[in-house]
Amino acid sequence: MIFGVGLIGGSVALALKKAGIAVQIIGVGRSLESLQEAKNLGVIDTLEINIQAACHAAEIILIAVPVAQTTAILQSIKPYLNANTVITDAGSTKGDVLAAAKIVLGEQFKQFVGGHPIAGAEKSGASAAKADLFQAKNVVLTPAPETSIHAVASISRLWQACGANVSEMSAQTHDSIFAAVSHLPHLLAFALVDDIASRPNAEQLFGFAASGFRDFTRIAGSHPEMWRDISLANKDALLGEINAFEEELSQIKKLLADENGAGLQILFERASTARNNWAKTQQ
Amino acid sequence: MIFGVGLIGGSVALALKKAGIAVQIIGVGRSLESLQEAKNLGVIDTLEINIQAACHAAEIILIAVPVAQTTAILQSIKPYLNANTVITDAGSTKGDVLAAAKIVLGEQFKQFVGGHPIAGAEKSGASAAKADLFQAKNVVLTPAPETSIHAVASISRLWQACGANVSEMSAQTHDSIFAAVSHLPHLLAFALVDDIASRPNAEQLFGFAASGFRDFTRIAGSHPEMWRDISLANKDALLGEINAFEEELSQIKKLLADENGAGLQILFERASTARNNWAKTQQ
Repeated sequence: MIFGVGLIGGSVALALKKAGIAVQIIGVGRSLESLQEAKNLGVIDTLEINIQAACHAAEIILIAVPVAQTTAILQSIKPYLNANTVITDAGSTKGDVLAAAKIVLGEQFKQFVGGHPIAGAEKSGASAAKADLFQAKNVVLTPAPETSIHAVASISRLWQACGANVSEMSAQTHDSIFAAVSHLPHLLAFALVDDIASRPNAEQLFGFAASGFRDFTRIAGSHPEMWRDISLANKDALLGEINAFEEELSQIKKLLADENGAGLQILFERASTARNNWAKTQQ
Repeated sequence: MIFGVGLIGGSVALALKKAGIAVQIIGVGRSLESLQEAKNLGVIDTLEINIQAACHAAEIILIAVPVAQTTAILQSIKPYLNANTVITDAGSTKGDVLAAAKIVLGEQFKQFVGGHPIAGAEKSGASAAKADLFQAKNVVLTPAPETSIHAVASISRLWQACGANVSEMSAQTHDSIFAAVSHLPHLLAFALVDDIASRPNAEQLFGFAASGFRDFTRIAGSHPEMWRDISLANKDALLGEINAFEEELSQIKKLLADENGAGLQILFERASTARNNWAKTQQ
């Protein structure tokens, strides 16, 4: 069963159907309207607003909601959780989710496997879901020392069936990696757009923004509530990343103020080589 | 005639040919090899390394080279410049170019029209040139008070023939606009990639970078020499933009450190609304 049939939950449902895995997918969510839409789109087989009934049959429970709602959902399912059900999530931060799961699930924490599918998510809703969203994408699982090996294997198979490359690491390692390569870039993109939007001549500035600006700021169009939650959940690592970036920027500012062309060129070359080498690995 | 038959110069040549404007396009450049490639690709009709001969017949001279080479090229053509020839450039900064043109061209500065086609340029070379590169794109002309009205009209027609939307503003206004919407984002993208590339665990970090990172850092793959020149040429406006961005970032850092979720959400919403509204105007 899937809590939150949006882009992620919906795409898992479609991928499992496409993989021919014979499961009945029950959609559970906050809004009957969204669930009905997901059912009409053929994403889920059954919609359920009665948590007890939904939990009764579930082999796997995937929680795919904004990360701040995870605790409330864990609390709502706890009373009805079978001993054999495996629970996983799809949140972009893992330290906070594991801490919450440990408190709420107690003895049954061993049935919980933290997960994070790395797939673009600036669009949302079941209508954006697609079966190949996770094809060749990374999914990170963050088992705790207590987590049952059976549970990890079960969730690993789930994501492999969706076409993903599954890797495992600690929640702390996960959160520090994603602070650098995802959360910081989002914050910088939000910062740049907000900086420009708040100027008296914002309209003129936007009028001359072109394709470089378009790509750089694409992630500034992301879901504000989701990114508020991610930022707060990964606060410490993210503050560390902001500090490191501020140092880097202040180094560039000094090279520029000193008109140190050679220094700027070395830095730009290092970045451009690294970026272009990375891009080759993505093809 | 076109100095520098790379992406920009080559695309102008192809666009004029496609528009059926009966001109003979002479390519002039640093490297005989590049000129020969442009001729083989059908981008230029004639290649010329003798500046005197090239200038003799030229109605319009387009200088489309890295901005730091503009002065040397103006010096090389000055002795052979007819009174009716109009000169223009395609550099990303305009204050420095106009200042150099004024010194080098003296009396004939009135024949010079500063220009900046706003078209993605992270690929380079004549082989990347295409006839529709400027279709529906902005081209900014920055005439000085001395510039001949005839010269401005001539260059305006040239770019309109390439399909561009032409606007006019002072060099100073141009440079301050592009510091905000182009030069700063490039610097931030270079900074982020350099920051990550210089870590001991860079390989691991790049290994989990996904589509948000890809788009945000695309411009960090840009030409280091070109961006060194642009940064230095627009130093003052760019330093002002870095300072404004640092203030914005420090505001976000404070909201995060204070765990001010409401404040973060307001800022992210403002940015995301502005970004998505802008994207609608680009379709």
